[in-house]
Amino acid sequence: MIEKALPFSASEIKKAVDEYETPFYLYDEKGIRENARRFKAAFSWVPDFREYFAVKATPNPHILKILHEEGFGADCSSLAELVLCERCGIVGHDIMFTSNNTPSEEFRKARELGAIINLDDISHLPFLKECAGLPELLCFRYNPGESRSGNFIIGEPKEAKYGLTRAQLTEAYKTARDWGVKRFGLHTMVASNELDSSFFIETARMMFEIAVELRKELGIRLEFLNLGGGIGIPYKPGEKPVDYMEVSEGIRDAYNRLIVANSLDPIGIYFECGRVITGPYGVLVSKVIHKKETYKNYVGLDACMVNLMRPGMYGAYHHITVLGKEDWPHDHMYDVTGSLCENNDKFAIDRMLPRIDIGDIVVIHDTGAHGYSMGFNYNGKLKCAELLLKQDGKVKMIRRAETLDDYFATLDFEGLCETGCARSA
Amino acid sequence: MIEKALPFSASEIKKAVDEYETPFYLYDEKGIRENARRFKAAFSWVPDFREYFAVKATPNPHILKILHEEGFGADCSSLAELVLCERCGIVGHDIMFTSNNTPSEEFRKARELGAIINLDDISHLPFLKECAGLPELLCFRYNPGESRSGNFIIGEPKEAKYGLTRAQLTEAYKTARDWGVKRFGLHTMVASNELDSSFFIETARMMFEIAVELRKELGIRLEFLNLGGGIGIPYKPGEKPVDYMEVSEGIRDAYNRLIVANSLDPIGIYFECGRVITGPYGVLVSKVIHKKETYKNYVGLDACMVNLMRPGMYGAYHHITVLGKEDWPHDHMYDVTGSLCENNDKFAIDRMLPRIDIGDIVVIHDTGAHGYSMGFNYNGKLKCAELLLKQDGKVKMIRRAETLDDYFATLDFEGLCETGCARSA
Repeated sequence: MIEKALPFSASEIKKAVDEYETPFYLYDEKGIRENARRFKAAFSWVPDFREYFAVKATPNPHILKILHEEGFGADCSSLAELVLCERCGIVGHDIMFTSNNTPSEEFRKARELGAIINLDDISHLPFLKECAGLPELLCFRYNPGESRSGNFIIGEPKEAKYGLTRAQLTEAYKTARDWGVKRFGLHTMVASNELDSSFFIETARMMFEIAVELRKELGIRLEFLNLGGGIGIPYKPGEKPVDYMEVSEGIRDAYNRLIVANSLDPIGIYFECGRVITGPYGVLVSKVIHKKETYKNYVGLDACMVNLMRPGMYGAYHHITVLGKEDWPHDHMYDVTGSLCENNDKFAIDRMLPRIDIGDIVVIHDTGAHGYSMGFNYNGKLKCAELLLKQDGKVKMIRRAETLDDYFATLDFEGLCETGCARSA
Repeated sequence: MIEKALPFSASEIKKAVDEYETPFYLYDEKGIRENARRFKAAFSWVPDFREYFAVKATPNPHILKILHEEGFGADCSSLAELVLCERCGIVGHDIMFTSNNTPSEEFRKARELGAIINLDDISHLPFLKECAGLPELLCFRYNPGESRSGNFIIGEPKEAKYGLTRAQLTEAYKTARDWGVKRFGLHTMVASNELDSSFFIETARMMFEIAVELRKELGIRLEFLNLGGGIGIPYKPGEKPVDYMEVSEGIRDAYNRLIVANSLDPIGIYFECGRVITGPYGVLVSKVIHKKETYKNYVGLDACMVNLMRPGMYGAYHHITVLGKEDWPHDHMYDVTGSLCENNDKFAIDRMLPRIDIGDIVVIHDTGAHGYSMGFNYNGKLKCAELLLKQDGKVKMIRRAETLDDYFATLDFEGLCETGCARSA
């Protein structure tokens, strides 16, 4: 039996279950804040360090607000994410707008909010100029192509739709400067859910080298290097979290050898992490509503793939704790399923767990990022609420569950039911 | 160059584009009705034939209503789908409620509407009795386990969470009868998106044999056999659609050899198809907003994975027509992408197409089923509208596009923005 620590005590979860209907997400404010501080502290040597939290990971304004209070900015990729930030008071250079194939109205909104704009393609330079005007500070996204290999999830950089080639970078900065842009940043993102520290150090080294080259080629000074996100989390028991200090020290060494030695100091280092910031500090809490024994043994939850897509979509592992049975022998093998008419609606396959009974509370770990945000409404299933365990020990609902009215909001039933049932239903 | 026929003329699509903002889904009422009639006509020999359209495929009340007018029922799998049917006047035995891991409130709603209930597990018999009472007519879902092999998409039956084993079936019907159930049906579903007619004939034969066995074992008469759905459509050019007549004739032969010969005639034959009913009669219409040349050539659409998940999620092929360039040489290779910050947000990879220019209208084929319904809101991207080309040639909006207010509906911004921006935004 291998257990994995939860950010909550069993009694904290039970209290939330007593107060709110399952399923729900539960986030840990204390854990998120402490982790944010550890992350920042690891990079205290950087003259201008910034983490822009990837809003797509957990697009809840209450979570964004907590991270903003800890000094984090927000990495936005769409109009909705920009407006979400605006509505919780995150504006200006606290927003990094990293998008691709970007519609003009999104660039206009980013400009209106004064966000740092990170361009994904060289053609976006005239496009942005035309539709929203060029800002004083501009960033470009670099795709290293064959010179780097990506990790499994994000795929090979040369197959990725993102970013500019190395030759395009030089051309883009030159044109931008000719068109009046005064300040510059550089961005890349070549990993997703990566646990190997050396990957991020290597990325920093690659970016430092480009900064040196661009200085030589064009005489421009980059104000910041945005190393993107991609720091993974240990989903499986026994996996080790990335050591922030190890990443920081490796980057510092490369910084000294390349940036300081070439008199480019100071230069800012930014990240756009999502998963590692909130992932381990959120869980999906669900109740067992059915057991089934056919060719295999099944446990059916009141949560389904709509609440958490990663296991069904990617076959991703999420650890499962059966509340109150942490110390029982894990001697039963189950498929843990939802209720979608999709056979991949399984949170776990052939998982060894303690004996499960109907009514048991099942806690699905590490769902604080890319959990709620990826949910769909397939089969007409509704998304659940999000709760926050605050630092004072109280549980606050930070997003209500969807209702049938939400699901029907874009439909007009007028004239469809002769007997008037549309009105009465 | 291999083109694939569209259900619409280029001028019909252009007219819709002139009237409505892209992207949008466009469905063809005439095509859907004619196909529904062909399907029914093929099985006119069956004493009691019924198609229950799988609501999950295209959960739009206007589409459900059209199919209902053609004599189809609705196959529902959730509370929302039941209420959707109720609100367009589809109730009683016009609904087949086929669900799994079913919450009690869904059984109660199905009972309230008088739907035919199809139980997925033997344990659901006491569960239904307890939470909603047993109806006069009851159906059970059979999972053949190792005795059948499933096709690629649905996986092996013995690994599937659905249905009862053969031994459980006998026990279930016996118990149901002892508990006062008077009328019985039997259901199975062992394929998804299958183009081989013989698969459905073999499924019918399997079901006929069980009907004969159950008559011998328990003396019960099954009123209907629900063969499920799973009839595929030719997504790729050159693939052949399933010949309804061929399926029907094969089933008729087995019916005569097993049902008639054993004096079980008449017995109803039901289907629960979704994809084959509406799939080919819907398209996703989108506009090219960007072109990008890096390590590959990219075409960026104003639609993204939020509008259509199948290519990104399954790597599924959807044919693409560039409007007005049907006859141009297909001599350019593109990745056709959306704007999500997910590298799998691609509608096509390495696809040979005519030269594409910004502003071109791109039509993505065969999205009339499992298209809109599978969309999520990842990255804060909003789902698009659904339009119907009516038989009178007019285009009607049958679902409006989502707005930012829809996206924010479950959130409360109160107190998050000290400067009052939450109210003004």
